[in-house]
Amino acid sequence: MAVYTDIAEDDLKWFLTEYDAGTLLSYKGIAEGVENSNFLLHTSKDPLILTLYEKRVEKSDLPFFLGLMQHLSARGLSCPLPLPRRDGSLLGSLSGRPAALISFLEGMWLRKPEAKHCREVGRALAEMHVAGDGFDLKRANALSIDGWRGLWEKSEARAGEVEPGLQTEIRSELDFLSAAWPSGLPAGVIHADLFPDNVFFLGDQLSGLIDFYFACNDLLAYDVSICLNAWCFEKDGAYNITKGTAMLEGYQSVRPLSDAEIAALPVLSRGSALRFFLTRLYDWLTTPEGAMVTKKDPLEYLRKLRFHRQVKSPAEYGLSL
Amino acid sequence: MAVYTDIAEDDLKWFLTEYDAGTLLSYKGIAEGVENSNFLLHTSKDPLILTLYEKRVEKSDLPFFLGLMQHLSARGLSCPLPLPRRDGSLLGSLSGRPAALISFLEGMWLRKPEAKHCREVGRALAEMHVAGDGFDLKRANALSIDGWRGLWEKSEARAGEVEPGLQTEIRSELDFLSAAWPSGLPAGVIHADLFPDNVFFLGDQLSGLIDFYFACNDLLAYDVSICLNAWCFEKDGAYNITKGTAMLEGYQSVRPLSDAEIAALPVLSRGSALRFFLTRLYDWLTTPEGAMVTKKDPLEYLRKLRFHRQVKSPAEYGLSL
Repeated sequence: MAVYTDIAEDDLKWFLTEYDAGTLLSYKGIAEGVENSNFLLHTSKDPLILTLYEKRVEKSDLPFFLGLMQHLSARGLSCPLPLPRRDGSLLGSLSGRPAALISFLEGMWLRKPEAKHCREVGRALAEMHVAGDGFDLKRANALSIDGWRGLWEKSEARAGEVEPGLQTEIRSELDFLSAAWPSGLPAGVIHADLFPDNVFFLGDQLSGLIDFYFACNDLLAYDVSICLNAWCFEKDGAYNITKGTAMLEGYQSVRPLSDAEIAALPVLSRGSALRFFLTRLYDWLTTPEGAMVTKKDPLEYLRKLRFHRQVKSPAEYGLSL
Repeated sequence: MAVYTDIAEDDLKWFLTEYDAGTLLSYKGIAEGVENSNFLLHTSKDPLILTLYEKRVEKSDLPFFLGLMQHLSARGLSCPLPLPRRDGSLLGSLSGRPAALISFLEGMWLRKPEAKHCREVGRALAEMHVAGDGFDLKRANALSIDGWRGLWEKSEARAGEVEPGLQTEIRSELDFLSAAWPSGLPAGVIHADLFPDNVFFLGDQLSGLIDFYFACNDLLAYDVSICLNAWCFEKDGAYNITKGTAMLEGYQSVRPLSDAEIAALPVLSRGSALRFFLTRLYDWLTTPEGAMVTKKDPLEYLRKLRFHRQVKSPAEYGLSL
């Protein structure tokens, strides 16, 4: 949950004069996203999301994020569409923060997704990968293999608090991934954070993808591995091959994976499990007790990492090879 | 801000089958209220507020709060209206909490209210006091004079951290108020928390009152004194007599104050300033650092209390006697 900045109604009305957004009827801070402040606006036209970009977002990245949503939307993907200001730009300023006005997507995220939903997510992810083609801004993935060692070093000294022996295990994992990380796989724009809370459904129908604020250029199959980690494990830590099969079939119905991408899936999945383990570990060790933030258990991703480490063939993810 | 409980979309859909609420399109946790979890629902019909009552609210008080909103709404006051369930009751259960579905009021609260808005608030408060007549449930005010000493004793030992010498001043204030508190004034249902964030406007037009979760039976003029404290002081601590005049004229245009109520205003205002000072002091001393809650400065209300203490005549509030 996150609403870091309050907005005075006069400032908001003034801000809205730059848009063709109708008359403002109400605005509510909403508990969505963890990096920014978000408000749901009711107007005499359609509802809108107002996002104020807080300090954790690099202002220089905003043209990438907003331009990407515009690009994907123009290519038919259902995702939030930034409204242009009267001068054509997508970014304004409100309460001292960069701010954008974005279309509101109806739909709900699934707390208990089933295999049929995983299929839809796989399909939508591939659609996004295809639609991202031709987007000409670039953004490096700061949270990919080159960034992990630095992230680990911030937590390493205290990692034993979470589980004894973690130092040795993670150092050896980093060494392995540095040696084994694939090169030459198809790359493009990836979502990089397509967790259940970023996918909306109306009934069993996927209604849209949101939160492109980790999007970047990286290996497309790495994005697939993030989704396998995020959607296809059960609460008890077990990999659900039915969900994995559905996810991968959905993906390949739009964009078939190459043999090299399939062969790389176990390594990529180790990498993405490590990536979420490392950020969660850092947050776990640095978020003060009593802060009204749900700390996510880093060990969940350590268990996933260990699962991928013992995978002997990509077939174990549910691929028919 | 407050969203303490997440809701699974399946549970919510099941909950909604008990209401004539249309098809659910989306729900967002919103930053509104500090005692409960609130969600803004979009449906195929009108938008709705879903409130989950958290531990700080006494379950036995809920029939009073919900019944009051229904009563006031039926009498023409613009306030949230609880939707009845198919069995006619107003209260259900969701995610293990008592839960109610309530109409959504469009409008925005004013960060910088002017005198003209204070006039509207005074009028709406009097309309509420009149409309409350005939509501037959009762709820004592736990935060009135009988409760203050107990509240003070929870903070007294550490009060010096906030300002040296506070112990003597507050003890003597409590003694004064115990002796001087009026009896025999008109009583009824009061809002007891009508701060700017609980009053919505569309343009300069008051569109509704919200958050009746401190409502109780008490002296009507005490509610007026709460509004004088909440609306008629400037950020620099000065009482704004123009706002006070407007507030009191607005109120009396609907319900004239008796001579005894007018004479009691300075004492009642000392009391209500002390009440908000005491709860803020307690929160100030007990809320952990780093919690994502805005701590409200108790000294703001100490300064207001000191202002009222030196008032020599109710005329100083802007009344023409």
